[in-house]
Amino acid sequence: MISSEYTKDLLLADRDSKILLLVIDGLGGLPHPDTGKSELETAQLPHLDALAAASSCGLLAPLGPGFTPGSGPAHLALFGYDPWHHVIGRGALSALGLGLDFKAGDIAARLNFCTVDSEGLVTDRRAGRISTDKCQQLCQILQQVAIPGVQVTIAPEMDYRAAVVFRGEGLVDAVSDSDPQIVGVPPQPLQGQSSEAKRMVEVANTFLAQVAELLRGERPANMVLMRGFGRYPQLPQMKEVYGLEALAVAGYPMYRGVAACVGMDVVETDASLQSECAVLEQHFGAYDFAYVHVKKTDSAGEDGDFDEKVRLLEEIDQYVPRLRAIGADVLIVTGDHSTPSTMGSHSWHPVPVVLASPWAIPVAGTSFSERGCLAGSLGQLPSTALMALALAHAQRLEKFGA
Amino acid sequence: MISSEYTKDLLLADRDSKILLLVIDGLGGLPHPDTGKSELETAQLPHLDALAAASSCGLLAPLGPGFTPGSGPAHLALFGYDPWHHVIGRGALSALGLGLDFKAGDIAARLNFCTVDSEGLVTDRRAGRISTDKCQQLCQILQQVAIPGVQVTIAPEMDYRAAVVFRGEGLVDAVSDSDPQIVGVPPQPLQGQSSEAKRMVEVANTFLAQVAELLRGERPANMVLMRGFGRYPQLPQMKEVYGLEALAVAGYPMYRGVAACVGMDVVETDASLQSECAVLEQHFGAYDFAYVHVKKTDSAGEDGDFDEKVRLLEEIDQYVPRLRAIGADVLIVTGDHSTPSTMGSHSWHPVPVVLASPWAIPVAGTSFSERGCLAGSLGQLPSTALMALALAHAQRLEKFGA
Repeated sequence: MISSEYTKDLLLADRDSKILLLVIDGLGGLPHPDTGKSELETAQLPHLDALAAASSCGLLAPLGPGFTPGSGPAHLALFGYDPWHHVIGRGALSALGLGLDFKAGDIAARLNFCTVDSEGLVTDRRAGRISTDKCQQLCQILQQVAIPGVQVTIAPEMDYRAAVVFRGEGLVDAVSDSDPQIVGVPPQPLQGQSSEAKRMVEVANTFLAQVAELLRGERPANMVLMRGFGRYPQLPQMKEVYGLEALAVAGYPMYRGVAACVGMDVVETDASLQSECAVLEQHFGAYDFAYVHVKKTDSAGEDGDFDEKVRLLEEIDQYVPRLRAIGADVLIVTGDHSTPSTMGSHSWHPVPVVLASPWAIPVAGTSFSERGCLAGSLGQLPSTALMALALAHAQRLEKFGA
Repeated sequence: MISSEYTKDLLLADRDSKILLLVIDGLGGLPHPDTGKSELETAQLPHLDALAAASSCGLLAPLGPGFTPGSGPAHLALFGYDPWHHVIGRGALSALGLGLDFKAGDIAARLNFCTVDSEGLVTDRRAGRISTDKCQQLCQILQQVAIPGVQVTIAPEMDYRAAVVFRGEGLVDAVSDSDPQIVGVPPQPLQGQSSEAKRMVEVANTFLAQVAELLRGERPANMVLMRGFGRYPQLPQMKEVYGLEALAVAGYPMYRGVAACVGMDVVETDASLQSECAVLEQHFGAYDFAYVHVKKTDSAGEDGDFDEKVRLLEEIDQYVPRLRAIGADVLIVTGDHSTPSTMGSHSWHPVPVVLASPWAIPVAGTSFSERGCLAGSLGQLPSTALMALALAHAQRLEKFGA
């Protein structure tokens, strides 16, 4: 059941109930081999556990059983959009997250600054993970790129990452990456994946030739790899499908990007929950819905740092009273996907979800963990079902049929 | 979520992890009216219970809630193919299982040797359940069938069952059965279910007329009933959709047939778990995936023999240490469908599943039974989701999207 497909015709007008969705990135984990307890089970989470015990709990699968999502599809699923159907290229997500001038017809791509040797072989795919400052300087140099008939916008992201947007006639996104994924080989030649892609490949090759020239004297970053060509995604907007004025509070570019895609207003904040809470408190009055994103749990999971993930979860727990005090009619705490520290990567395991509302059905013995939510009244659901549940608990949907 | 539709584009190359799938036919049961315990709950299953307690458990529904599958659809679902979409005629399954020369364009049907009286009325639909030896002799006689323009291949299956394959121009499978399902009436006239079926009906009627002539002097089997016309099924192959070199270890023809359909290599074995284990141990090294099938539990259920099904389950339990010792990265024990002894037939009830892997989420209190798997971390799933979970736990799938 995909929320965005079914809610549109059932929206009740003039409802002023509010929904707050806290997304803890990479929330779900796996049992530690020594203790048999997951990160969530190890952490002391008095506020989240109390919330779970008083709420409807369950587990959400972003893509269905067995499929591991990237951050983009995982978020689209949470927002009620079929992630198998709505595919957003990584470049498009980056461009949106950076707030670049990016609109229908434009093509975006990710740029990774890299190091190539005198023969053009890639020796470091991340150019020694240059600083964001250095990345900004290099992007400044690349402002000199000039391609006839094409407007090129380049902006730094974090560390060695940047994004480019091409605007011009006849550009499409069916182009393969130049990132060879390994070192000691030249970048992959860009290849069009359809007959319409010829112009885009020419433009991108011209771009790469000029970049090589402009960065010739730089070290360690003297080239870029291009990845994730994507057109501007045209998704149904939250206002239209859910009737919600929606706010996104997220410090990291990509999450701002996916929120912007679905029509959320994106406000400035850094990535700390301290700042995010302050921004939320300041702006939530003007909105029906807010999405708040916490990134670091995912990074700790990716780093395989079980203890750090536990510590971060305990830190998040301390903000729960503050989030409850904001007084949303529906408060949901969940994750976009699991990132078990024991795996050191995203995984397919379903993610705990807690939905607090006067219309929830608490179940004795539930707590805020993978196994603690298993007995909850929501059961196991696709993530795409969450938004309809949020709207229902906010009493924003009328009944279907007489 | 149907595994075979989504895995193909996410397969990781160069993975050497192994998956072992033990399918206990008709596994699920129902509580005995006297004890309130199902066959699985009655049986002493120390090894299976220990496996369940250390694994991810759940329940699989082959066709969705309320629908009872035959063996073909139930297996296709387990293998990740939509059983509502991919329909294999029973004749086609038999032909494949027997290893007959059977290819695209051919039409197969099941033959049941039967007894007819002097007026042509069916007096025994199974000819007194003649022996397999007798069946072979009769099939030898039927080699004399000759139909102009059509190549006819006949082979004995078990007991009174045989299969026929027709090869020729313009043959289709939209033909009804001749088996009247009751005695005291003549065989049903074959009927084409589409306008293209005229030639096939003619050919089959010619075949039946010659069979009647050839078997005129035989007793008790002096005729055949035709069932389950089916064309050669063209299914996506496991190598293609899952990247798996797959092995089938199954003693009964039909299960060998369905495995062959999806591209598994079928090795010779009898139907005992003793032989199947030996064959598995011998061949598994050369494969990524093995399917092992145990039939007798289903037969006991069909016979309404609760105690025998309990005994067989206890026998299977003794092989679990040997199966674990094979060292697959992912070990799955489940059934194709339920066959409750109290019903004496296949049923729609979901089937216990246990998935053992380092990435499993064990839940305290789970055990290997219908109710013992209910609290497991996999929840209730369509059987078609299993293969994606198997691949995920074998770390053979990359994440979807950035």
